[in-house]
Amino acid sequence: MTYKENENSFTPMAVESLLDAITFDASGLVPAIAQSASSGEVLMLAWMNRDAVRETLETGRVTYWSRSRQALWRKGESSGHVQRLRSLRLDCDGDAILVSVDQAGPACHTNRPNCFYRQMTSDGLVVILEPVAD
Amino acid sequence: MTYKENENSFTPMAVESLLDAITFDASGLVPAIAQSASSGEVLMLAWMNRDAVRETLETGRVTYWSRSRQALWRKGESSGHVQRLRSLRLDCDGDAILVSVDQAGPACHTNRPNCFYRQMTSDGLVVILEPVAD
Repeated sequence: MTYKENENSFTPMAVESLLDAITFDASGLVPAIAQSASSGEVLMLAWMNRDAVRETLETGRVTYWSRSRQALWRKGESSGHVQRLRSLRLDCDGDAILVSVDQAGPACHTNRPNCFYRQMTSDGLVVILEPVAD
Repeated sequence: MTYKENENSFTPMAVESLLDAITFDASGLVPAIAQSASSGEVLMLAWMNRDAVRETLETGRVTYWSRSRQALWRKGESSGHVQRLRSLRLDCDGDAILVSVDQAGPACHTNRPNCFYRQMTSDGLVVILEPVAD
């Protein structure tokens, strides 16, 4: 799979108009929710800067900004667990993004299908998802 | 409906252990994604502080922190479009929350079913959801 096979093609002008519609925070970031296109499962929340949004649209491969590494984070770069973009939506205030994705493998770096694997119960947080076997 | 009818009951100790597991940002906030328990639709992204998380768990009614008003935001307080908590999950890094909710009426203040009503197309952002009639 090459990431140039982008089903969606966005004109540079369309990309710039989207970027103008986004309210980035003081650090130049916007939270992005990734949702599985097939199951509807919420996979993760991460952050994008302008370059990450642009690269996501231009390549069709979801790219975030890693706050810990302070670098673009092409999801799956080392793990192979890439997210292929199906659609990108912006919320009413322009300060949150929802991407619908085809997720290859587990979305979470813990090898779980998604990052929200701890659920609050009457006794406290309980792990409700186990890591996927390699 | 009274909001004391909380199906989930969490001990004060469980609530405090959850609060300790959350990594709040420099402003004391954590992003919270609301997802419809019935449809799986991602409804909105908002923010919670410690008090909002605690109140959400104690009352079973989802409560956020309004950054614009700098006050607790009991979702639906003025509109009636409340969110009843079904479950609360925390992500791997402890810095994002996912709440599964029963949403009364439209989730968005624009009267749309959810806040993510603008979708990126080849021509730019397009409104894909219309406001619900009153």
